[in-house]
Amino acid sequence: MKNMLFVSKLTVNKLNKKKLRSGNNADLNIKPGISKTHSPEVCLFFCFPEKKKTELCQELGLQARDLRFQHSTCLFARNNCIILRMATLKAILTPQSLMVLDFRGQGLERWLIMELAPQLASLTHTLPFEFRALEAILQHKVNTLHSRLNDVEPVILDILESLVDPKLLSADRSKLHILLQNSKSLSELETEIKVFKDSLLKILDEDEIIEELCLTKWTDPRVFEESSLGIDHAEEMELLLENFFMQAEELGNKARELKGLIDDSESVIFINLDSHRNIMMRLNLQLTMGSFSLTLFGLIGVAFGMNLTTAFEDDPRAFWLVTGFMFLGSGLIWRRLLSFLGRHLEPSVPPLIPPVWKRNLKPSDMKPGVR
Amino acid sequence: MKNMLFVSKLTVNKLNKKKLRSGNNADLNIKPGISKTHSPEVCLFFCFPEKKKTELCQELGLQARDLRFQHSTCLFARNNCIILRMATLKAILTPQSLMVLDFRGQGLERWLIMELAPQLASLTHTLPFEFRALEAILQHKVNTLHSRLNDVEPVILDILESLVDPKLLSADRSKLHILLQNSKSLSELETEIKVFKDSLLKILDEDEIIEELCLTKWTDPRVFEESSLGIDHAEEMELLLENFFMQAEELGNKARELKGLIDDSESVIFINLDSHRNIMMRLNLQLTMGSFSLTLFGLIGVAFGMNLTTAFEDDPRAFWLVTGFMFLGSGLIWRRLLSFLGRHLEPSVPPLIPPVWKRNLKPSDMKPGVR
Amino acid sequence: MKNMLFVSKLTVNKLNKKKLRSGNNADLNIKPGISKTHSPEVCLFFCFPEKKKTELCQELGLQARDLRFQHSTCLFARNNCIILRMATLKAILTPQSLMVLDFRGQGLERWLIMELAPQLASLTHTLPFEFRALEAILQHKVNTLHSRLNDVEPVILDILESLVDPKLLSADRSKLHILLQNSKSLSELETEIKVFKDSLLKILDEDEIIEELCLTKWTDPRVFEESSLGIDHAEEMELLLENFFMQAEELGNKARELKGLIDDSESVIFINLDSHRNIMMRLNLQLTMGSFSLTLFGLIGVAFGMNLTTAFEDDPRAFWLVTGFMFLGSGLIWRRLLSFLGRHLEPSVPPLIPPVWKRNLKPSDMKPGVR
Amino acid sequence: MKNMLFVSKLTVNKLNKKKLRSGNNADLNIKPGISKTHSPEVCLFFCFPEKKKTELCQELGLQARDLRFQHSTCLFARNNCIILRMATLKAILTPQSLMVLDFRGQGLERWLIMELAPQLASLTHTLPFEFRALEAILQHKVNTLHSRLNDVEPVILDILESLVDPKLLSADRSKLHILLQNSKSLSELETEIKVFKDSLLKILDEDEIIEELCLTKWTDPRVFEESSLGIDHAEEMELLLENFFMQAEELGNKARELKGLIDDSESVIFINLDSHRNIMMRLNLQLTMGSFSLTLFGLIGVAFGMNLTTAFEDDPRAFWLVTGFMFLGSGLIWRRLLSFLGRHLEPSVPPLIPPVWKRNLKPSDMKPGVR
Amino acid sequence: MKNMLFVSKLTVNKLNKKKLRSGNNADLNIKPGISKTHSPEVCLFFCFPEKKKTELCQELGLQARDLRFQHSTCLFARNNCIILRMATLKAILTPQSLMVLDFRGQGLERWLIMELAPQLASLTHTLPFEFRALEAILQHKVNTLHSRLNDVEPVILDILESLVDPKLLSADRSKLHILLQNSKSLSELETEIKVFKDSLLKILDEDEIIEELCLTKWTDPRVFEESSLGIDHAEEMELLLENFFMQAEELGNKARELKGLIDDSESVIFINLDSHRNIMMRLNLQLTMGSFSLTLFGLIGVAFGMNLTTAFEDDPRAFWLVTGFMFLGSGLIWRRLLSFLGRHLEPSVPPLIPPVWKRNLKPSDMKPGVR
Repeated sequence: MKNMLFVSKLTVNKLNKKKLRSGNNADLNIKPGISKTHSPEVCLFFCFPEKKKTELCQELGLQARDLRFQHSTCLFARNNCIILRMATLKAILTPQSLMVLDFRGQGLERWLIMELAPQLASLTHTLPFEFRALEAILQHKVNTLHSRLNDVEPVILDILESLVDPKLLSADRSKLHILLQNSKSLSELETEIKVFKDSLLKILDEDEIIEELCLTKWTDPRVFEESSLGIDHAEEMELLLENFFMQAEELGNKARELKGLIDDSESVIFINLDSHRNIMMRLNLQLTMGSFSLTLFGLIGVAFGMNLTTAFEDDPRAFWLVTGFMFLGSGLIWRRLLSFLGRHLEPSVPPLIPPVWKRNLKPSDMKPGVR
Repeated sequence: MKNMLFVSKLTVNKLNKKKLRSGNNADLNIKPGISKTHSPEVCLFFCFPEKKKTELCQELGLQARDLRFQHSTCLFARNNCIILRMATLKAILTPQSLMVLDFRGQGLERWLIMELAPQLASLTHTLPFEFRALEAILQHKVNTLHSRLNDVEPVILDILESLVDPKLLSADRSKLHILLQNSKSLSELETEIKVFKDSLLKILDEDEIIEELCLTKWTDPRVFEESSLGIDHAEEMELLLENFFMQAEELGNKARELKGLIDDSESVIFINLDSHRNIMMRLNLQLTMGSFSLTLFGLIGVAFGMNLTTAFEDDPRAFWLVTGFMFLGSGLIWRRLLSFLGRHLEPSVPPLIPPVWKRNLKPSDMKPGVR
Repeated sequence: MKNMLFVSKLTVNKLNKKKLRSGNNADLNIKPGISKTHSPEVCLFFCFPEKKKTELCQELGLQARDLRFQHSTCLFARNNCIILRMATLKAILTPQSLMVLDFRGQGLERWLIMELAPQLASLTHTLPFEFRALEAILQHKVNTLHSRLNDVEPVILDILESLVDPKLLSADRSKLHILLQNSKSLSELETEIKVFKDSLLKILDEDEIIEELCLTKWTDPRVFEESSLGIDHAEEMELLLENFFMQAEELGNKARELKGLIDDSESVIFINLDSHRNIMMRLNLQLTMGSFSLTLFGLIGVAFGMNLTTAFEDDPRAFWLVTGFMFLGSGLIWRRLLSFLGRHLEPSVPPLIPPVWKRNLKPSDMKPGVR
Repeated sequence: MKNMLFVSKLTVNKLNKKKLRSGNNADLNIKPGISKTHSPEVCLFFCFPEKKKTELCQELGLQARDLRFQHSTCLFARNNCIILRMATLKAILTPQSLMVLDFRGQGLERWLIMELAPQLASLTHTLPFEFRALEAILQHKVNTLHSRLNDVEPVILDILESLVDPKLLSADRSKLHILLQNSKSLSELETEIKVFKDSLLKILDEDEIIEELCLTKWTDPRVFEESSLGIDHAEEMELLLENFFMQAEELGNKARELKGLIDDSESVIFINLDSHRNIMMRLNLQLTMGSFSLTLFGLIGVAFGMNLTTAFEDDPRAFWLVTGFMFLGSGLIWRRLLSFLGRHLEPSVPPLIPPVWKRNLKPSDMKPGVR
Repeated sequence: MKNMLFVSKLTVNKLNKKKLRSGNNADLNIKPGISKTHSPEVCLFFCFPEKKKTELCQELGLQARDLRFQHSTCLFARNNCIILRMATLKAILTPQSLMVLDFRGQGLERWLIMELAPQLASLTHTLPFEFRALEAILQHKVNTLHSRLNDVEPVILDILESLVDPKLLSADRSKLHILLQNSKSLSELETEIKVFKDSLLKILDEDEIIEELCLTKWTDPRVFEESSLGIDHAEEMELLLENFFMQAEELGNKARELKGLIDDSESVIFINLDSHRNIMMRLNLQLTMGSFSLTLFGLIGVAFGMNLTTAFEDDPRAFWLVTGFMFLGSGLIWRRLLSFLGRHLEPSVPPLIPPVWKRNLKPSDMKPGVR
């Protein structure tokens, strides 16, 4: 076990907090402290990727395939160890220690030292070490999912809020771009929540696996005595896992609602754009009617402008008559066309059509009585 | 138990009804009355948030985590207490009392004192106290869900009714805004109904949990005798929970139908807007045809208006001939174009196409016979 | 049992058929006939809402909550009675009688007297009374659902048929209104079928409940002997319920197909409307090109119409040259623009693009061989 | 059994093949041959609808309701008979014979005589008669479903292929009509496949029913001996049914894919149509800009055409100056407007927006390692 | 066994690697090497399609139907052989050998000889031969699915990236074509992943089948002893299959996300196209307003151009007054129309409408506390 970086909680607290505060996480020099792990105390190890997994397997009595961590989310017990992976966090949990593998460059350092270590060290918890560690890790996972949802949610809501603004003639297309990016993140988040939920559900469905996860129960004889005082480890483990399952379920519900909101908003955006278009088209049509009237009666003016003899050339009233006819005529025709348009757009529906659902709305239909 | 506000039902009825009527709920001064809880009588407590949960835990023999109320909806039994949370209502139910926690500022005061207290006090119920209390609380939950659906439904129906109005050229965009808000509320309501249903279903699926919820069965020896007279507590509890499950199911069905109606209406709105646009476009096209004809024949007038010699200058009939040609010509061309448009828009479908589904409609296809 | 309207089938047949034929259902005076219910004979009762349910409970040994009928569809056995509600039909079924509750004003009178009574009286059925009654009621329910689907289906098919007509430039918006109404009815029907199916499925999933529904088995000792001759009551009940479950399933499938058809048709309507619009827009664009050409070359005419000296004033050929240039020029430019449009609309796709899926179509891909 | 048409396979082969070849199926005169059904031989009967079902029931010991065939697809065992219906094919299968009911006018004659009879007669099959018959019938059902899918698929693919053609300005609306018809057939086919799958699944889920389907096992004592040689009838039956279930599953997958393809293609058609429209609208807008410029500067010409004194009347250069100004001015303004349009349509997106998902594309993200 | 091509791994390694490198797979001459299969050694056979399956059946004690390979994906055990098909790969696996059937012309040669053979020969694996072989084949299947997804994914992402580009006025329709093709491939891939997952799930759900797949357990007595040392074959098999199930699950998730992304992008494309259209339509409308103003005031010029006496003919200021009025008037009217348009497009929404969801966004709503 000598080729593994070995940090007792106390050492971490003393040595590294300052370093972390300086923001210099990249070359975090966790100096191996010498820590005697007396039985009642528990330890947090950081295992470097350079160390051979085979040695780890031999020490813990595991098989090579148990440490493959092929799937992004896994949680199972082997030979009285809990092996788990939550995205970038890979860990092995024994009754007395928690080993974190390959934690470098994953942005986990801060959490590991600033939060996980104190949490594990707190002795107020009445349950064994594996409960504390599992809870801290699952809580970290849920918090990560939650903060990702919290990152995405306000951006999406802001963008949708501005896109459904009824004053907009056209959707701001750079916002659509950002919406699409966030919508994609949301899909990925949904998948991850689903995978997390499924992996917990698989455990919750089989009591046998839950029993295996209670490591201390099988190693520490005193625990059996304690448990006779009222606490059943397997039941506690089920409650713990169920708690996180329900938290994930709530996150999943929120993500689903957000997806639904995007869809609904898109419909509204389309109706908005279509409405704008219809209004513009009606205005355009009204102007086209005006232009048509003017062109029609302007033709009279053009006719009189021809170099041909009309017999009115010298009539001083002719100019005013023809000009007045041109303007009045085109005005009248325009008005005629506009009222025609108004009639034309109103459909041939008899005005007494029954409303679609009013008649179906019986407020007394479902009155949940008092039993 | 002295650091808990302790209100017997009788005290509540006497002291506070007046206060409630004055609408002054915010600083409701529930004065602690002295109440001897003799065994057969039951009590309703209001527990203030200032009181320490740890004391409560010790009194009732619960664990700290049992009173976390992390999830918005939960219902479970621990150590002969039922702990439940329905959104803002957090309560602990023992065989003789109902404690409501953190009820301040949640708008629950009126319901607690005006409805819950009398309901619990009524002695016509043949079943033990926990049944009465659970039923009252679940009924309150279902009523809340139902009233929220009833708030949302008429607004949505009204807006849809006005949006699908075929006379509208464009959708009223402020109504769309309100529709979107209500559609979002509906989604949230659907999620809440689903969560409520799931939490009941989880209990209904495990007979063991139902047994645990029958508190009196385990504490009161007389109950066992009574139950031998025909009423099985566990079965009653199952019926009670199933009843609320089905009420929630009906609410869920209604919400789903409403969602479907919004979707269908949106399709109709789109078809409406598109139809209006097509009609306007045809009118526009017809006018453009008119303008084109006028411009084409107006060119003749322009030509004769040029300061060039045409040899017709002095022909008195030329003016009338050319003017007539202009107007008649443009009229004819327009008519030609209009009839071309009519032919062009009719697709090249042979008129004898079989209808899509008439031939599939065999009314005798499925005749559910009398067995 | 005296405060209940008590009608033997024979009485009903004699007294009321005439009244029913006169269409005067509202004030149907069912006179209480005196009917001795000797054991082998069965009876159909009509119970008025005015009668107290408490008395009914006492007579039948039921609890008050059993007769609440809170849910629109329910079917369960209590104390050797089957209590069922199918929408407006509420009934209690004992081994010898069927009591129909609150049947007034629900449009059930005709069915009850004209169909149900004779059906129950027929003695050709080899199974006990509760089978006959249950079958008649479930059949009535399925027939009601079926006739509602039959009401909605042809209307929807007709409207869709006329809406997808490719000759239509715009959708007839009053038809859309009717489509929306029927689409809403279809959704409600789907929900009702689902609720009916679920309530049957709940029974079919638990053999215990099926056993309870076989009332005669538990009361009539002779039945046990008969059943030893080959007919197992519970199995018969399962077959009966399964039969109606499958009928409801078929109705559900039909409703789902109809919904799908509405969706598909809406897509086709949208494509139709869009196609019409594109065609009109091309025509419009072509005319705009014409107008532009005419305006461009008309400008020459306008220029020559100015009161300025052009040195061509007296050239007799100038008029014809300029006029010809105007008309020919605009014609040429128009033609140029039209051919530009034709080229512009054809996309820059290399003509040798492979078809999308032809190459995937391997007809020999799935050849279900003979085993 | 005398009032049933009784045809041994040999007779069929001799008498009717010629008739069938003449295409004269309608009045197919199957002459009743006399056939002694000695035990080891099996027979195929054709039962006419005129024969009474009651007699059939008595002969086979069935109940009347077993021969109702209410549902379009059913398959169950009663009293050592298998009763099945696959759409139009209704049959009763006993250990020695297959009776086909009501086969007239259903287009089944050819299959029954040309394919089913030889298949049943073939003695190479090592399994009992009911296996051979069941397999032949289920295979016929799957083949029917498959051929219906094969009818629909190429039509849909062809139409979609031509509809998504990017060169089309508008969708050919007669093709849409055909697409809708085939889409409807596809939905019906999907429902039928689902019903077929469900009815097989119901059997596969209950071992008891599978046992019942193995008719010979219960009747023929020799079979028990044989089966001790390695073949378990129930297991064979399960494999047989599972095989057809998976074939139906594959058909269902294909149908689902086809539906998805229709949906995807519709989206592409809409984008195509919209793109065309946008292109035409831009061209239209560009021409409108040109017309506007011409009208604006044409106004100068109109002004100079007025019969008012301008002091330029006699300036010989004025004509050329004004005319040149008109044409050049409108040309310049047009160019200005076009470049304005070009800028206007480009959105105000900073050109350095990160691409939507490239950054998320980590090719090394999921590298399924070798275990 | 002589009519089967029989290649020991060593022979393959020596003879054929060179040939494969020359790319000449088509006429790959695998010379039959003579290979003594001593018990502890295992062999890879290539079985040609010309060989009769019946002989194979006799040798291995299988039934003819076991080697039908009707379904594209199957995996089951018969008579201590594992028979499997993964698309084009058909194989029979015995405790000592792997026979690959019909591998010609399927593009499998390279994988079979270059990868499968060495993998099977490696002796580092502690588990029996069937585990090694099954793992190699399933891994090959998953790799195939994965590489197909990897082929499709970047193409789709590239096309979507370019299609949602907000600068585009119209969608590039040849890209849509390619998108449609890839979308279809994705659907097929999804179906195949689902079929693969289902076939693994069917095995994982039944412990009995897993036991059957552990061939060595039943044949080799030494294995039982070994397994007592800690390795349970059935459990290992379950882990192996579960591992591949989860890999397929991840692939399925990815494919589903990609489908969702296509849908989301299509919505964005539609909004983009609609926005462009609205912007162009507004520009068009503004120009139409300009043209209308010019036409209206140009009519004055036309009026004065008529050959009629106006009494202003000789007023030298008249020209400038009328011309100025024409231009100024049309400019003013245009400005008026533009501001009208601006007001008209802004909806009649009171500016103080509450935002849709801001008020619902309670960031403190769900704060997953530390348990």
